[in-house]
Order: sequence, then C-alpha cells, then structure tokens
Amino acid sequence: MQLGMIGLGRMGRDMVRRLMEKGHQCVVHDSRAQAVDELRSQGAAGATNMQEFVAALKAPRAVWLMVPAAVVDEVLQSLLPLLAAGDIVIDGGNSYYHDDIRRAEQLKSKGIHYVDAGTSGGVFGYERGYCMMVGGETETVQHLAPIFAALAPGDAAVAPSPGRAGHATSAEQGYLHCGPHGAGHFVKMVHNGIEYGMMAAYAEGFNILHHANVGKQEHQNDAETTPLREPQYYQYDFNLAEIAEVWRRGSVISSWLLDLTARALDEDPVLDRYAGNVSDSGEGRWTVKAAIDMAVPAPVLSTALYERFSSRHMGDFAGKVLSAMRQQFGGHVERKN
Amino acid sequence: MQLGMIGLGRMGRDMVRRLMEKGHQCVVHDSRAQAVDELRSQGAAGATNMQEFVAALKAPRAVWLMVPAAVVDEVLQSLLPLLAAGDIVIDGGNSYYHDDIRRAEQLKSKGIHYVDAGTSGGVFGYERGYCMMVGGETETVQHLAPIFAALAPGDAAVAPSPGRAGHATSAEQGYLHCGPHGAGHFVKMVHNGIEYGMMAAYAEGFNILHHANVGKQEHQNDAETTPLREPQYYQYDFNLAEIAEVWRRGSVISSWLLDLTARALDEDPVLDRYAGNVSDSGEGRWTVKAAIDMAVPAPVLSTALYERFSSRHMGDFAGKVLSAMRQQFGGHVERKN
Amino acid sequence: MQLGMIGLGRMGRDMVRRLMEKGHQCVVHDSRAQAVDELRSQGAAGATNMQEFVAALKAPRAVWLMVPAAVVDEVLQSLLPLLAAGDIVIDGGNSYYHDDIRRAEQLKSKGIHYVDAGTSGGVFGYERGYCMMVGGETETVQHLAPIFAALAPGDAAVAPSPGRAGHATSAEQGYLHCGPHGAGHFVKMVHNGIEYGMMAAYAEGFNILHHANVGKQEHQNDAETTPLREPQYYQYDFNLAEIAEVWRRGSVISSWLLDLTARALDEDPVLDRYAGNVSDSGEGRWTVKAAIDMAVPAPVLSTALYERFSSRHMGDFAGKVLSAMRQQFGGHVERKN
Amino acid sequence: MQLGMIGLGRMGRDMVRRLMEKGHQCVVHDSRAQAVDELRSQGAAGATNMQEFVAALKAPRAVWLMVPAAVVDEVLQSLLPLLAAGDIVIDGGNSYYHDDIRRAEQLKSKGIHYVDAGTSGGVFGYERGYCMMVGGETETVQHLAPIFAALAPGDAAVAPSPGRAGHATSAEQGYLHCGPHGAGHFVKMVHNGIEYGMMAAYAEGFNILHHANVGKQEHQNDAETTPLREPQYYQYDFNLAEIAEVWRRGSVISSWLLDLTARALDEDPVLDRYAGNVSDSGEGRWTVKAAIDMAVPAPVLSTALYERFSSRHMGDFAGKVLSAMRQQFGGHVERKN
Repeated sequence: MQLGMIGLGRMGRDMVRRLMEKGHQCVVHDSRAQAVDELRSQGAAGATNMQEFVAALKAPRAVWLMVPAAVVDEVLQSLLPLLAAGDIVIDGGNSYYHDDIRRAEQLKSKGIHYVDAGTSGGVFGYERGYCMMVGGETETVQHLAPIFAALAPGDAAVAPSPGRAGHATSAEQGYLHCGPHGAGHFVKMVHNGIEYGMMAAYAEGFNILHHANVGKQEHQNDAETTPLREPQYYQYDFNLAEIAEVWRRGSVISSWLLDLTARALDEDPVLDRYAGNVSDSGEGRWTVKAAIDMAVPAPVLSTALYERFSSRHMGDFAGKVLSAMRQQFGGHVERKN
Repeated sequence: MQLGMIGLGRMGRDMVRRLMEKGHQCVVHDSRAQAVDELRSQGAAGATNMQEFVAALKAPRAVWLMVPAAVVDEVLQSLLPLLAAGDIVIDGGNSYYHDDIRRAEQLKSKGIHYVDAGTSGGVFGYERGYCMMVGGETETVQHLAPIFAALAPGDAAVAPSPGRAGHATSAEQGYLHCGPHGAGHFVKMVHNGIEYGMMAAYAEGFNILHHANVGKQEHQNDAETTPLREPQYYQYDFNLAEIAEVWRRGSVISSWLLDLTARALDEDPVLDRYAGNVSDSGEGRWTVKAAIDMAVPAPVLSTALYERFSSRHMGDFAGKVLSAMRQQFGGHVERKN
Repeated sequence: MQLGMIGLGRMGRDMVRRLMEKGHQCVVHDSRAQAVDELRSQGAAGATNMQEFVAALKAPRAVWLMVPAAVVDEVLQSLLPLLAAGDIVIDGGNSYYHDDIRRAEQLKSKGIHYVDAGTSGGVFGYERGYCMMVGGETETVQHLAPIFAALAPGDAAVAPSPGRAGHATSAEQGYLHCGPHGAGHFVKMVHNGIEYGMMAAYAEGFNILHHANVGKQEHQNDAETTPLREPQYYQYDFNLAEIAEVWRRGSVISSWLLDLTARALDEDPVLDRYAGNVSDSGEGRWTVKAAIDMAVPAPVLSTALYERFSSRHMGDFAGKVLSAMRQQFGGHVERKN
Repeated sequence: MQLGMIGLGRMGRDMVRRLMEKGHQCVVHDSRAQAVDELRSQGAAGATNMQEFVAALKAPRAVWLMVPAAVVDEVLQSLLPLLAAGDIVIDGGNSYYHDDIRRAEQLKSKGIHYVDAGTSGGVFGYERGYCMMVGGETETVQHLAPIFAALAPGDAAVAPSPGRAGHATSAEQGYLHCGPHGAGHFVKMVHNGIEYGMMAAYAEGFNILHHANVGKQEHQNDAETTPLREPQYYQYDFNLAEIAEVWRRGSVISSWLLDLTARALDEDPVLDRYAGNVSDSGEGRWTVKAAIDMAVPAPVLSTALYERFSSRHMGDFAGKVLSAMRQQFGGHVERKN
C-alpha cells in the first residue's frame, strides 16, 4: 500500500527503505532536500513541501510522522489543513502519550484518524525490523496492518513462545495493537523505562568488575574515608570485553543490550572515548511520573534515571550540602579530589 | 576425558548427560541412590559412597562438585582424605568467592588444585549449554578445557561480536578463565547481581502496565491518601502476555529473561499461582557487599535485592514505625488495608 | 486584625484558637455546625453559610482556607462571587503549587489577591506555633504579617543561627515569604519530601535494630534462600524505646521526629497496633515529579515514597513476575510464606 | 573517679576537659607531646609514653581509647602487656562491632574487661554533652556510670518523653547500656546509618530548591536530552538560608542537623567553598552490610551511602558503559558537558 513519511532522519529513512523493499510505495518529505533526494533515487516519490507531499498521496491518505517529539505539533499545524476526513496520521516518534490523547481528540473533530506507534529498533531496525506498539481505533490499526507487518521483524525472526500454538497474533510478527489512543506510546514509554533499568544493571555490574582490583592500589591513610578492610579480596584484573562476550552464551543475562555492550567493549575496552554524561530522552521520566501517579513503586527504574541526572552533575549541589553539614558537626574538612 | 561429578540435582545430572553425549566418561556420586541409578542407566559409572567414587577415577582425578554452597565444606571434608597430590577439585555451585580463596589455599597445602567455575544456564543448560566463569591456575584450567568446551554452548550457538575476528577466545565458546582463585565466582556473583537488576526492571515495568487501568476504579475519597489527579490517563487494560511477546522481536529490551517472562505470562496472564515472596540465593547480597567494600555505587542492584527482602515482609516493621510517627505528629489514623 | 477561617478541622480550629489568644478577631465557617459552635463559644464570630461568613468580614477581607486540597476549587466557587476587588484569599492547606499558579491568575482577573501558605506543625501547632512558607505578592504578604506572626512560634521559641545578628528576618519568627505565587507550597512540598526521607531513615534504622537478634532464630535449611553466614553477629535484643530516648540527647540525629518516635515506642514498644500500611498525602509525589521535570536526582526521597506504596501492596504483582521468572529459568518453587 | 584517656584529638581532648570540669581525674596520653601538655596545663596528669601512662593509673584501671578505628589494635598491642586482670578498656571511637566481639574475647582471656562505647556529639560535645551507646558486661558498665554520666548531656538537657514517668533510666541522661559486647557500636553504627539517610534527605531537598529556577534558563534544543515541558512551573529563585532558618521553627523537619545546615547556608549561601566530594567513615557501609546479612531492606540508607560514593566519581565508569550502549543501539553521540 501507499504510505507518506514525514521526517527522514536515521529512523524515518531506514523505515522507508524497508517498506519499499517489501513492495510498498512511499511518498517522502523532509525539510532537507538532500534527504528527500537520497530516497527518491531509491524509488520513493519525494516532496520538498507539504502541499506537494499531500498531493502525491491517494485518499484515504496514511501519513507517518517520524520527527522529534518536540516538533510534532508544529508539523501537524501545517499538515492538517491539507488533509481530509478519513485520512490517517501515525506518530511513530517518542511522543508523550498525554499528547496522543489530546491530538487524537483534536484530529477526530476533523474526521481524521490518529494512531500512535511506539517504535523500537534503533539503527539496526532496517535489517532486524522494528518492534511496534500501537494505540488507536481498531479499524484504523487494521487498515495499516500491511505497513506494520512490513516494518516488523516478522514471525520467522524469533520463534513464538512455546505453548502459544493456536493463538497466533500480530505480536508474533513484531507489532501489537495495545489499546486506544496513547496505549502504544504508553507501552513504548514503559519499554524505555525498563531499558533504562536494564542498562543500569549492566553498567553497575561492569563498574564493579572494573574496580575489582582496588585492593592492589596503595591507599594513603585518610582519616576521612574508611579504608578497605580486606584488600586481599579485591585483587582481580578483569577483561571486561571477554566477560561480556562469554555472558552472551548460555547465561541468564544474555540479551541484545549485552550483545551491543560486548561490541563496545571490544572496540574500546576502557571506554575512554566517553565522558560518562548520559542523556535521557523523556520516556524514563514519564514512566516514573506515571508510576507515581498510580502509586506503583518503581525504585529500580527511578534509580536508573537518577544515575543519568547525576552523571550530568545535577546532584553536585546536594554533595556540597553534605560536605557543609559534615564540616559543621564534625569539623570534617572536605577532600578536594 | 574422565570427570567425577558429586551432586546429581537438576544441574549436576544434566551436566553429566551433556558431557556423556559429547563423548566424556563420567563417574557420579550422590547420597540419593536413585539419582545415581538414573545416570548409571544412561552410561555413567555410579558410586554410592565416596570411597567407591574416588576409586573409580584415574589419577590425576578431576572432581566437579555441584552441591549447595552450604554443604561444600562438608563434602570436601570426606573427599579430601581420599584424593592425592595433582588431583583437581572444581566447585561449580554458587559458592561465595571468599570461600574459594580459603579452600584453594587449604587444598594447595596438599598439592590438590582448586578451580571455581561459576555456572549459569539453569534448567535449559542441558540443551543450550552452560555459560562458565572460571577461576584458578592457568595450567589447571587448560587441562580441563575439554570439559568446559563440552558443557559450553559452543561457538555455533551465537555469532561472535562483529570485529572480534582474529582474536577468537574460549569466550566465544561460552566459557572464560577469568583470573586466579575466586575470579570465576566473583564474575558469576556480579552476573547474578545484574540478573537481579534486570529482573527487577522487567518486574517494575510489567507492574506499571498491570496497574494502568487504575483510573477506571472507583476511589473512595480518603483524606489519608492523595487522590489520582488525572484518571483519564490511566484507562488502559493491557494484555501483558502479548506485550511480552511483541517485545521479543526487534526491541531494545529483548533478552532471554524476557523470553521466559513471555512464557510465564502466556501460561498464567495474572500470575495468580504466585504469592510474590521472592527468595534470594546469596549472590545478589555478595555483589552489593563487594560494591560497598570497594566504595562503588550499586543503587539499582541493591534496590532490586531489597525488593526481594521486602516481598518477604522484612520491611514491615519499618512501615509500622512510619505509621506510628504519622499518628504522633498529625493524628493520622492508619488505614487497615 | 480580622481573619476569616473556612475549614475547622484539627488544623483550622487550633489556628483560630491561637489567633484569638494573640488578640486577633476571627470569623469562622464550616459545614459542620458543631465545629462552628465550638469556636463561637471561645469568642469567634461563627457563620454556618458562606453569605453570612462573608458579610461578617470587613473589606478588604482576608479569608484563610484550611480545607482538604481536593475541595479547594469547590469552596472557591461558592466563595468568590461574594468577594470584592482588594480582598485576599489564603490557601493554607496542602495544595499542589500548580493549582496555586492557576488560581492566583483566576482571582487576579477579579482583583482578588491570592496567597499560598504552606503550613507545618500538625497537632502540636496550637502550642508550638506553626511554620509557614508563603507565596504571593509582597504587598499582600506584608499586609498579613500580623496573622503570620501570631501563628508562628515567634523568635523566642528557637535562638537564631549564630552569626545571623544584623539580618533578622521573619524566618526567625517562623514564617517566610518565599517568592511569587506557588512558592510557598513549593517549599512546603519539598519540606514534606524531606520529611518522607527522614522518616524512612529512622524507620529503616529501627527496623535493622528490630531484627538484630536474627542470629538467635532457628533457620530451616532452605535451598531457596541463602542462610545467615555469621549468626554470631546477630544476637542482640535491643530495647528500641530506650535507644530512641538516648538518641534524643547530644546525638547527631536528634530531631522533633525522633522525639515523637520515642513517645510512640514508649507507648507500644513493638508497635503492634499498627499494620504498617503507610498513606501518603501528595507532597512526596509532587516533590519527586518536580525533581524529575528539573532532571535533579532525588533517589532518597523517591525511595522513601516507594516504601509507602509498597507497604500498601502496590508492588505485589512485581514480586509475582519475579517468582514466575525464577520458576522458568531455574525451576525454583516459590516459598508460600 | 579516675580515667585514663589515650588519643587527644578533637574528641578525646574535649571529653577530658568535660570530665575534669565535672570533678573527675584524668590521666592522658597521646603521641603528640603538645596535645598532652595542653591538657596537663588544664589539670590532667599527662604521660608521653605508655608505661608512664599506665603507672599513673590506680588499679582497677579504666582506660578510654579515643583513636581512629584503624589504629585500635596497634594501641592495644602496646597497652595490654601493661594492664592487669580487673582493668577495663573502653573503645569510644568508631570501631566495627565485629572487632569489639573479637577484642572482648581476646581481653577476657587476660581477665581484662572490654567496653564499646559509641559516642556521638562531634565538635559540640564539650558543651552539649555526648550521647553514648554502650556494650559490655553489666557490672563493668555500671562501674563506669560516673564517667558516662559526666560525659552525657544529663537529664536537664532535654525533657524526658511524656509518659515515661516512673521508669527513669540512664537513657534520660544521655547514655545507654545497649547489650553485650559490640551492642554499643552496633547501635552507634545504625545511628550513623540513619544520619546518612537524614543528611541525604536534606541535601536532596535543598538541591531541588536550588534548581527551582531552571525554567528561567535558555535551553538549547538538544535532540539528546528531553526539554523541560512546563518551564512556567520552575521560575523560583529561593533563598536557601532563609528557608533553612524558617524550617527550624515549628516544622516537622526541625532537627539538630537542620540547625547546622542553616548555619552553613548563612555563612555561604551557595556553598562554593565545597566541591561536593563527600567522604564516608565506615558506619554507613557497615549498617548496609548488616542489613543485607539480615535480609532487611535498607534502600534509603543504601542510597544515601551510594550518593557519597558517586560524589567521589566511583560511578563514572558506569556512565561510560551507558553512553557506549546508547551509541551502539541508537547512534547517540554523547554530549561532552
């Protein structure tokens, strides 16, 4: 079928390529003419302005937005006047699900259908396929099934869980209609919250291994910080790249994130190219805020999020308050390094 | 080569079966005669007492212990007098690495070699192979390479990380000599610490999804607990089994633990057969204690551990203290449910 | 000066009594006639309906709301039509500061001034005085200074911090104009966030002391849960009430919360009258959500909040997920208690 | 009565001064002659070597050690040969309670009594008195009661908890016999664990207030980090010193630690003299390790400890692992600041 794609960054571009390889027709638009040209040369119909883009689509139109969450509303403002009742807008980016609910309402008043499609897969999606978590009206989602099926990894990629025989669903292909508007991004949000937690679990574990030779280091006797009581237990110089590699095989903690970590450690065993300032793109925050609204405990997911904030020095003032207190009650002079 | 196995529980038994299938000879011992008989019928040499067991092994003997950590010292006490200099004892269970260092020292005085082999794989190891993290002297570990290679998944199981070409190591088969005595169990300990963190990340995420329909529930207006401000955002009835299944394909959080979670949710979508009292088998505790000794932060791994303690009601008294304080300063009467 | 008080619960009633003792005139209103009568008998002008209440106040009127956060908007709806430009509404309850900003805007359009006054002190405020954190326009706050001064503990209660000589401020009396609209409740919100953290610190500490005799208990040898390695270190039967009492004197952790804990433990050393289901009244949640919006790490405050959620069984499903995973990968059968 | 004091640092010196003011005789020893001279000039009998020190004490001798935990064993090695059966050694420093149990055993074999006396009070103890948590045999502790009573704040300092009438104990004076050997330092350990948690609660709260004007800052639109969605809610420039001061009066979170924080903020409102590298002196670690041994959840106390480790950059490698993963799966380029 035909799909219009707005936003030809890493994700949007690769999704168009995958769709075309699976036989779908794509009309593409991006403010960068070069990005449009690149896909045009691969068979897409390209449009450098919104009018041209919409004109190239047959009604009922299906338009997929793959743009930063912060600019979705802006894009909709120029797109919506050109659409007609019955058209469909899919937001495949990392929008906050509150915004989905608001936008679905807004589009509904014009007879336009809105679908939120949380999309995971990153730079590997073109080859592996994308995992999609979809929210919206059932009919609209079903109408788009050929698109989702083409983007998804497909049922050959991973065997279904044993015992599922007899109730094959689209989840076995790699996409799922999760519920009404916002449900797709809600599930994607929690997905990313879990991702933060898993990443932190690995990061803490490798950090412990990284420091496991601390008993070999000379320690100045420092009255401020307690000494290592049993240095004999911390004499290990571990090869982190080899450990990541071995864990990929037969262990309980094998995962795709571990596969990637093994690559990164193989390329750069001490990760010196990184400073360790870790960004966060919103979903982790929204996951925690949702948990708090619901009164559901999420200490691991929150802690993982906070480690990122701290890595960006947002906790430094708290450290100063602690040092100031210690100076006051105990006359403790802060170590400067 | 020949290996003696003491302890024919789920793990020991399946390891013997895998070894025999790969052409190794096994001498087995367990206090339960039935367990010995079962493997005898499959080709193992069985021994119901320690003397017989040791007598059936050719020097230099290699004896693998696959018994609960708490009984290793007891087994060694009856085994050691029967061994001779040059023999090898492998502890494949979940021992604390402090104990490895102590035992290696103790055995060394008799000329016996000690190897600690942290083993991951669970009930699936027989088919998938076991991931082994090994500590000990290089020569001894190399001597045992055929055993480790047979137990490991092997290099066909998982492709090596791209870019590793040219430095193939045993990690690509699924076992690794991590360092001197204790290094194997140290790495296994951290492995399990990470496992706790990953499991908690999934558990918290699914718990959030589980409660995502809280906005549909009638809430009595309760002066004690703040009401849900925006119930319209919590109206989702999610199918957790389908979500787990879709995440297995193309998503960033795919993993073997997720595969297992998908099975469990498919069998029992509300997990009513479980009470939620979660045990812990030691490695998580030791990981955190090691991190603290080294002054390395491990908040996610610790939090995951504490969720297990709390699930076993070990934090209940703390809750009583909080309720007592609230009563004192605000006259707040505790809700009884 | 004259003040109107709406809401004669524990807090509102005692504040009126304290104001009258300091020579102020109070007009009071509550939907419960008995509450109005009680204060009328102590010298207040009482009103059982809103019209009567407003009529009894001289312009420019000052009306203090001391009602649950959830009903403030409802009260304003019936109050506002009766007020005139130049009047002042003070919200002394535990409102979310987002609501203050909205309400201040709404009232401003009618020329009415809005003040948010976060009030701490609980059931002891009548005697000790109340700590007030105030947000609003400077002129309005200054106009209300006599009221704040009367409600506050006063400068005799606690000596100013050494070194403050020369810059005496209202903080030394116990109230502070913190900033524009919402600033008062923002500071009160963080105050309560800190309160949750402190309470959790004490609760965890007392819980550790409570379990310090765990080494005396017979432990069944349970393959699922790791045994206590060194029972000789956990043989202490502590008297928690005496420990709380001694910490009140000269220790670094003395505080008013500790004073209250000591009372509670003296009355009921094992706190058996409590179940340990701990409520939360909103500010802890808002503190964490604000921290997350700002990307400021707040792991201790969050953890304290989550302990309350967990105490109300909102984490139980996560425990079931963990048990289900353990069953899957290791065949671990969950302990039922 | 007579007391020997070894270790004339800030704590030991002030304790001797307080004891002498209350009429006790002190024999003092320190390797620094100047420290001995200073107290000699104030009335103490001074000894610059151990022989002289012990000779100046009447049997049964009572010797109080106020030295760093790391040197206690060394001091005992030179002291013990000079002592006789019936003498008493008190360790008033911050020793690990495991060491107390070992030392008590060791001294018992020579007929010497050992007492562990966890001492809180810091640089203010000379004036305020010290809070002491004592472990050891009942008779020995009772023998030392005059010393403990002189060092403690005394019952006039703080009124007993209401309702305690009739069961006055030494806790009301400020010292407590907590239990057998190690019990004193166990309780002091948990005391310090709580201290870490309380300090972190304040530090996180003040950090949130410190960043409450983040909505005023220009934010570059950065694809890596999610933008602040509602800057209008983060426009507050708070005066932290005034807020600390007002919270000291009538609020639920008033405490001695808050008193000290208010002083520190009054002296230096932005705390620029501190870098925020926070030391830890052992008890926080031991508290968490004890909790873990007992399977008691201590997430707030642990988190507080980890914030200190992180402030000393012990988590930086974990941040690098996270950035490396993000680069791998999403091509995310790390921000360098």
